[in-house]
Amino acid sequence: MKEEDCIFCKIANGEIPSTTIYEDDTFRVILDLGPANPGHALILPKEHFRDITEIDADTAAKVLPLAAKIGTALKEGLGCDGFNVVQNNGPAAGQTVFHFHVHIIPRYDADPKMVTWTPGTYEDGEMEKVAEKIRAAL
Amino acid sequence: MKEEDCIFCKIANGEIPSTTIYEDDTFRVILDLGPANPGHALILPKEHFRDITEIDADTAAKVLPLAAKIGTALKEGLGCDGFNVVQNNGPAAGQTVFHFHVHIIPRYDADPKMVTWTPGTYEDGEMEKVAEKIRAAL
Repeated sequence: MKEEDCIFCKIANGEIPSTTIYEDDTFRVILDLGPANPGHALILPKEHFRDITEIDADTAAKVLPLAAKIGTALKEGLGCDGFNVVQNNGPAAGQTVFHFHVHIIPRYDADPKMVTWTPGTYEDGEMEKVAEKIRAAL
Repeated sequence: MKEEDCIFCKIANGEIPSTTIYEDDTFRVILDLGPANPGHALILPKEHFRDITEIDADTAAKVLPLAAKIGTALKEGLGCDGFNVVQNNGPAAGQTVFHFHVHIIPRYDADPKMVTWTPGTYEDGEMEKVAEKIRAAL
């Protein structure tokens, strides 16, 4: 199913041109126009899912193997030292286009800090309480 | 296969205690001791893979469906507004434990910026040259 007015539906299905590095029946992989580093790629399913919570089982199973394939090609083709795989869900997480997508970001040893966070701490007993809330929802 | 002296092998296989929120034959999901936000979870395969480029096909296929399940439980159990799925490969990408793992980070609308990068640009013709190098390695 495609969504009207979803730019990633149009790109994934070839209605809007993109710099495509890989395509199969399920996905198109393009270069991000505003890259964190050159070669920053986006995995887009051709079908529309708002985020990871909506994705169907068949598509979901294919995402990580494809991310591994693309990341390996970034290392081999560009000579990067590593790469991040990032997938954001919801505006609070920085998602700006509401069509499921995965960022694969080439990284170099000399890079400034990127894709990072400040580690927090738990107070005594707090961790187990948080864990119990999550377990109850699983 | 487990690796001697790999802390995540020991945690995933229950030799070192952890706050476990989910476990099956392939994975253990724990709470990170230095969370970006409370409930920050880590998906650990029980088998040792250094990073995504080493992971076997069966395990790889199960990662994203599990990330979706955990993220959905974070939203339901903790009431977070969104979540990030982050997987780092290599020291250049911020990987510090060399046993494949996936971060699932609860996010709230009021959070400071986190898991973000400054979008760059390509010079004329550069994007296609970068794409060609990646395609050649695929």
